[in-house]
Amino acid sequence: MRLHLLAAALVLTVATAAAQTAPPPVAPIPAPVQANVERLQKAALASDLAYDIVESLTTEVGPRLAGSDAEAKAREWAVEMLRANGFQNVRIEPFTIPYWERRIERATVITPRGRQALVVVALGGSPSADVEAGVVRFASMAALNAAVPESVRGKIVFIDEPTVRTQDGSGYGAGVGKRGQCGTVAHAKGAAACIIRSVGTHSHRFAHQGGSTHPRPAPVAPSAAVSPPDADQLTRLLARGPVRVKLEIGVETRENAPSGNVIGEIVGRERPDEIIVIGGHLDSWDQGTGAIDDGAGVAITTAAAKLIRDLPRRPRRTIRVVLFGAEETGIHGGIAYARQHAEAMGKHIVAAESDFGAREIYRIRTRFGEGALPYARALQGALAPLRINQGDNATGGGPDLGPMRAAGVPMVELSQNGWDYFDYHHTPDDTLDKIDRTELRQNVAAYATFAYLAAEMDWDFRKTADAAAEKGRTP
Amino acid sequence: MRLHLLAAALVLTVATAAAQTAPPPVAPIPAPVQANVERLQKAALASDLAYDIVESLTTEVGPRLAGSDAEAKAREWAVEMLRANGFQNVRIEPFTIPYWERRIERATVITPRGRQALVVVALGGSPSADVEAGVVRFASMAALNAAVPESVRGKIVFIDEPTVRTQDGSGYGAGVGKRGQCGTVAHAKGAAACIIRSVGTHSHRFAHQGGSTHPRPAPVAPSAAVSPPDADQLTRLLARGPVRVKLEIGVETRENAPSGNVIGEIVGRERPDEIIVIGGHLDSWDQGTGAIDDGAGVAITTAAAKLIRDLPRRPRRTIRVVLFGAEETGIHGGIAYARQHAEAMGKHIVAAESDFGAREIYRIRTRFGEGALPYARALQGALAPLRINQGDNATGGGPDLGPMRAAGVPMVELSQNGWDYFDYHHTPDDTLDKIDRTELRQNVAAYATFAYLAAEMDWDFRKTADAAAEKGRTP
Repeated sequence: MRLHLLAAALVLTVATAAAQTAPPPVAPIPAPVQANVERLQKAALASDLAYDIVESLTTEVGPRLAGSDAEAKAREWAVEMLRANGFQNVRIEPFTIPYWERRIERATVITPRGRQALVVVALGGSPSADVEAGVVRFASMAALNAAVPESVRGKIVFIDEPTVRTQDGSGYGAGVGKRGQCGTVAHAKGAAACIIRSVGTHSHRFAHQGGSTHPRPAPVAPSAAVSPPDADQLTRLLARGPVRVKLEIGVETRENAPSGNVIGEIVGRERPDEIIVIGGHLDSWDQGTGAIDDGAGVAITTAAAKLIRDLPRRPRRTIRVVLFGAEETGIHGGIAYARQHAEAMGKHIVAAESDFGAREIYRIRTRFGEGALPYARALQGALAPLRINQGDNATGGGPDLGPMRAAGVPMVELSQNGWDYFDYHHTPDDTLDKIDRTELRQNVAAYATFAYLAAEMDWDFRKTADAAAEKGRTP
Repeated sequence: MRLHLLAAALVLTVATAAAQTAPPPVAPIPAPVQANVERLQKAALASDLAYDIVESLTTEVGPRLAGSDAEAKAREWAVEMLRANGFQNVRIEPFTIPYWERRIERATVITPRGRQALVVVALGGSPSADVEAGVVRFASMAALNAAVPESVRGKIVFIDEPTVRTQDGSGYGAGVGKRGQCGTVAHAKGAAACIIRSVGTHSHRFAHQGGSTHPRPAPVAPSAAVSPPDADQLTRLLARGPVRVKLEIGVETRENAPSGNVIGEIVGRERPDEIIVIGGHLDSWDQGTGAIDDGAGVAITTAAAKLIRDLPRRPRRTIRVVLFGAEETGIHGGIAYARQHAEAMGKHIVAAESDFGAREIYRIRTRFGEGALPYARALQGALAPLRINQGDNATGGGPDLGPMRAAGVPMVELSQNGWDYFDYHHTPDDTLDKIDRTELRQNVAAYATFAYLAAEMDWDFRKTADAAAEKGRTP
């Protein structure tokens, strides 16, 4: 947050001193459209529809691991829910995934004083294991990378790298590297197993789940995360002398497990083939009930589209709510969607995914053509009453949008405040009580504003700087 | 806290308006004794001895269930630690207890949508069980008490009574009733099992352990606690229709398991047979590592006595540190101590137990003869630089002191701020990181002040009002 303020101050200084680069103009919004924006925001800030949706999903279905029966029930739930809210073309687009489920995970630390249980969770993709070995600690993933194989062969490597708390989730990007790499690197160096300090920012006895996002992972050593207090305990014990750990992991895997994306639409009144995608992911890790990750995203985007449907007339373009399946175990839903809709990618006007909890949105980021920046500024102007600032034009979009981004679809990111997101994310503690109704309403207002404007205006978010120059000043 | 301030304001008003009851006089403290008090406080506020003790216990021994091998290792640890700190007459006073350990605990809620796991912990004294039955919810223990047996026969009763957050722990006193009674009442009414909302003040997926404090409990139904978010989930599901729960509990029990109190002394220079008891309990529940409950109490009182030992000369009376065994499963250590020292109870001058965490002490309460209230005021005066206020003369003392209190031993309570104590107490989250070094030092300063004055002065805390009147104004 401090860095963020510093950056803002710097921008101000530069602008005041020289005004070297004029900001892009703001695309105008016609009065009747602006009136609908205000109507949507007012309705969203007074509605508990999103809360009711996430309450229903997390209560009735609960945890919904990718490829499981519970995820199938979540799809049934989603179809019912979208139909009940008046969506059109409600359907499941199925695909299959490699299934991975943790059944057993136990870690016991063995010292001269006796045995102590550690709070652990198997990491996604880990093989089963029953190993007992000495532990070698590394302060970071980089330190393990630098280690000679002789120093870890037959040992359990322990990566004690902490996760930094930030508003924008950047601490996760840095911390998650060890989660994705530790098992592979440990295997390559001949280690018996890998234990990481959880990718989390709290100090509770929760271990964070998570796994590789590679569909075809390299061979990995058995891998588990320990809770932050258990990582501290292990570090204190290692400071006293050699420590052994017995690690037991039992997993169930199978090929071709069923998953699917669930889709519902508000069909556009003039250009139904032009698509605005908003959505979240329907699956969750299975320690918690997936409230902030990502029941909230499902609820926010569905409620936003429903409020747009309730306007006196539908917008020009189609708003498609995509509830992705199997995000957590490899972004399978996002990959399947882009493949199944490959021919229509050019008709995908813009996409935004809500997959970062339910705290207040503070920023809009985009990935538009340079000539479309006036639309980014117009969007921010419409979002300003919700306390949303202008971000940069370099967002990656949400995780499920990666394949669409690669296909050239413009992206919008409505950035939630992630200050406490990694206190709960992928833990047993990701439950409904972590969602604040007032903040959730603000999220719905922001998504409704964005989706309505993108669908109602004829803005081309792909527009290049050259195209803008040819036409004279945008828009 | 608000109530507390209100009470203080009330006292002030009454005092100002009428001065109807003069406060008791303050017993004087000679200058050399006062100088030692200041020296002790200064040393305590600069010492991490207590932190090092609780770090060592929770790291090296970890969880130490009453009667377990780990508790035996904790006794060995305590003997070494007391000797290393220069205590005299270090010894274990053994006794035996009925052993109870949870081995398996699983609860699954079954609804038309499928099954969900609940975070549960078996309650101390529960029998083993494997039952599946419909659930009947009660908003309070009183509601279950009022229910006719026909309404719960064969069912799992669910007591959803919350615990109120307070500074002085009074919310626990009210909330813990359901934990002690639910199993017995459920059994008497023919219910299949009892599930309670955890006696805790947080909203995390931790279930709180705990059990009956009766050495000879009545027959009980299988009993477990669910985490607060799981209690909310169960309540939401019940609002939608009938719910079944499958509850599996596996316990190990045996008679005559070994436990014991560990004792170390600073022998008095003039009246070695007159005893000041301070201490905490050595055992813990086994989900966490027993840092705030009660590694902190062990550390605070031991460090306080050690600082007194480091004075140029020992105080007149003996300071006895008693580290009680098997408190959690029935106050066995406190009962054994009072029985084993029954003949010396008259020589027990005063006792204080630290068993309420490690937050700052804000109050001194006493249980003295009416004629000894000037000593209470003198103690508070000496503690005032540590921001400690005068409480009432009606403390019950700590849990292990109950049997001594019954034998007429005067009591002192140094009240820790319990605002967040029941966020961690009896959960996996009771770990070292929950202890603040600065607050811990203040605790040591307070215990050192009290124990030193009680041991150095010839105050008689049993003195009656009549005795005080006979002698003229106290002291």
